[in-house]
Amino acid sequence: MTAPTAPPAPPYYLVNFVSLRSGEDEEGYAAMAHAMHARALEQPGCLGVDSARGADGLGISVSYWADEASVLAWRDDAEHTLARELGRERWYASYALHIAKVERAYAGGDVSNASGKSAREK
Amino acid sequence: MTAPTAPPAPPYYLVNFVSLRSGEDEEGYAAMAHAMHARALEQPGCLGVDSARGADGLGISVSYWADEASVLAWRDDAEHTLARELGRERWYASYALHIAKVERAYAGGDVSNASGKSAREK
Repeated sequence: MTAPTAPPAPPYYLVNFVSLRSGEDEEGYAAMAHAMHARALEQPGCLGVDSARGADGLGISVSYWADEASVLAWRDDAEHTLARELGRERWYASYALHIAKVERAYAGGDVSNASGKSAREK
Repeated sequence: MTAPTAPPAPPYYLVNFVSLRSGEDEEGYAAMAHAMHARALEQPGCLGVDSARGADGLGISVSYWADEASVLAWRDDAEHTLARELGRERWYASYALHIAKVERAYAGGDVSNASGKSAREK
């Protein structure tokens, strides 16, 4: 994925995961990150995922959800729970997670609309 | 900045800016990004900033704010407004902006506490 996810019409939820890689197990980490990105997109209520990781090891992954119930269902997903445990043990030196209700959203340019959701232009 | 910002105690606001670089004017973009990061941190109510941009050109910048008033004041800041205009014209192929109220937050490992705000451990 390259272009930013087109914001759906608020209100919706976002889960913002900020992490610093430990530097260990690059191959295992990359496989997990790819699998969890794809798995999130398959979940009911998932409206998209944006991810970026810089050369300094700091990464931000944001997933967008229709409502709080879909956020909680993803938290409780068994494969996602296992990935989080491995992340805390092995892949992340530190992390922060923010669960938030989106009140306003804007977009410009050619945002990604892979999920079939409508974009909002400012 | 390397480690994730330590989440303050909710509720607080976050502004999530996802952008795809146009590839134009790398030097001007880098100078603006550095200046805006520093300027955001100086604003009243700003609780921190996390930023990452991957090799594919997709970047995510998240700023954290004490309340909606401080979000709106930053939106109306003159230098920030100018930077946004240049961004739309020159630096970004596309972007999406999400303004959200954080309901829950967790952290683990050695998160950054440069702002003097307290961390929340899960």
